[in-house]
Amino acid sequence: MSDSEKLAPATAEQEAREEAVIAQVLGSFAGCADERLRTVIQALVRHAHAFVREVRLTEAEREAAIGFLRECGDITTDTRQEFILLSDVLGLSMQTVCVNNPAEGEATEATVFGPFFVEDSPEIDNGGDIAAGASGTPCWVTGTVRGADGEPVPNARIDVWEADDDGMYDVQYGDDRTAARAHLHADGQGAYRFWAITPTPYPIPHDGPVGRLLQATGRAPMRASHLHFMVTARGHRRLVTHIFVDGDPQLADDAVFGVKPSLIKSFVQRPAGTPTPDGRPLDTPWTQVRFDIVLAHEPPRGAAAG
Amino acid sequence: MSDSEKLAPATAEQEAREEAVIAQVLGSFAGCADERLRTVIQALVRHAHAFVREVRLTEAEREAAIGFLRECGDITTDTRQEFILLSDVLGLSMQTVCVNNPAEGEATEATVFGPFFVEDSPEIDNGGDIAAGASGTPCWVTGTVRGADGEPVPNARIDVWEADDDGMYDVQYGDDRTAARAHLHADGQGAYRFWAITPTPYPIPHDGPVGRLLQATGRAPMRASHLHFMVTARGHRRLVTHIFVDGDPQLADDAVFGVKPSLIKSFVQRPAGTPTPDGRPLDTPWTQVRFDIVLAHEPPRGAAAG
Repeated sequence: MSDSEKLAPATAEQEAREEAVIAQVLGSFAGCADERLRTVIQALVRHAHAFVREVRLTEAEREAAIGFLRECGDITTDTRQEFILLSDVLGLSMQTVCVNNPAEGEATEATVFGPFFVEDSPEIDNGGDIAAGASGTPCWVTGTVRGADGEPVPNARIDVWEADDDGMYDVQYGDDRTAARAHLHADGQGAYRFWAITPTPYPIPHDGPVGRLLQATGRAPMRASHLHFMVTARGHRRLVTHIFVDGDPQLADDAVFGVKPSLIKSFVQRPAGTPTPDGRPLDTPWTQVRFDIVLAHEPPRGAAAG
Repeated sequence: MSDSEKLAPATAEQEAREEAVIAQVLGSFAGCADERLRTVIQALVRHAHAFVREVRLTEAEREAAIGFLRECGDITTDTRQEFILLSDVLGLSMQTVCVNNPAEGEATEATVFGPFFVEDSPEIDNGGDIAAGASGTPCWVTGTVRGADGEPVPNARIDVWEADDDGMYDVQYGDDRTAARAHLHADGQGAYRFWAITPTPYPIPHDGPVGRLLQATGRAPMRASHLHFMVTARGHRRLVTHIFVDGDPQLADDAVFGVKPSLIKSFVQRPAGTPTPDGRPLDTPWTQVRFDIVLAHEPPRGAAAG
């Protein structure tokens, strides 16, 4: 770690002064009656002080950080969650997903939840259409839901949501529309199918402080094209994930680090006029993708006690 | 670190997955053209991810943290700076002071700046009164300003500010008053003297999320009694510090960790009727304190290159 060597405190006396500050702060939390809160806040103190000491943070930089957090607060509303974006672009959302979803056999990998999920989306029949007027190329999605031991999971609830062809989720329009968002239930053998729209890349909201941070550090705000899934079934770990579009150039540079190779799926192009699997008449091109879902056990096998 | 051992990831495979997330995030900042920004943000990423991994942060805890930051944003205004309070109560303000003010011989120690400094305070004559109507027991403050080699520093600018007897700074009243806040210049031999009010303990603003954090963790919001100084003279490091009141029970439990033993001064009690040093007529008790200031060199001797 050559950077931290260069920046280390010059003397043992200075090192002792800095460690004394940490000891004092840790001590102030020693009386916290909630053991978990004490563990978390004392760890936060240790890591945050280690950061300040390692980079030899200047007063001006501390003030800039405080100003940045204030700007995040200023732009945040119920539908614009700048602190979630910050957690996302620093990879902290994905790391939290990773920590809480240890790999289990063939279980489908989880990825970030994102800020655009809505409770109580409309229910559609298995085989129905989630688009509800959202613009985009129709996409036929099919698959099965199985448990980690290979058994079919009947009647799992599948929530799906996505951005439209203009890169906007319904809630971003601010006009109460519900589109490209629904839930359905797999059948008794765990099979599911529905119409959606073919995902396209879009930028995370980048007209605020997080967007300026990305720009200042040479990063793009683009997300790889994806379709969100949340799959819930009794006795199984809830799965929050996406599927990504094979061939999307954005896959290698997703702004929130959500891409996992196992989640990249082939969206097969079908020219206009190709008969559809369910007989739906379509005079436009469409695509077709298969996503077989494997749910992990709940509680997770092999996870650390926490 | 028994806590982190207990909570460590269960398998080498899981450890590799978590490290892969960090590598990806660090890589995303590798192209940042501003070298200092790159150093700081990559260090922030490493320490923040280490925190998430060590405590095995849950999804619910990550959401709670984001909600907490949002509440800090919601309560913040130009005169209520919740993110500064957060930095203060986690000791990060004091650690930044410590990192940027290495000890130098007999130089007076620095402490936290706090959120209540105001540029362009009124000027008073050497020997004048800063109170301007603020309630409190009068206090006669005298001392000298010297350099680290013992030489008097003539004409140093001394900014002083403090809370009144009700624990309020002028700016907290929201009525444009200026009180208990001024600046003066030491004389040609570095001597200074002024009337102030005797400091009393007061709570930091604690009706917001930071106050709730303190309460949840069993901490008090009280600050030890103090009088703020900022001393500026060409060729010397700017000194931002306080003096504290010897005997104040709050000294051992200052909410922002600002107390240094070298900054605790004896405020000598004088009964009503005791003649004042400058002949000012006073029919109330008053106090008297001496604070001899030693300014460090600028740039600091023995500081790390940064």
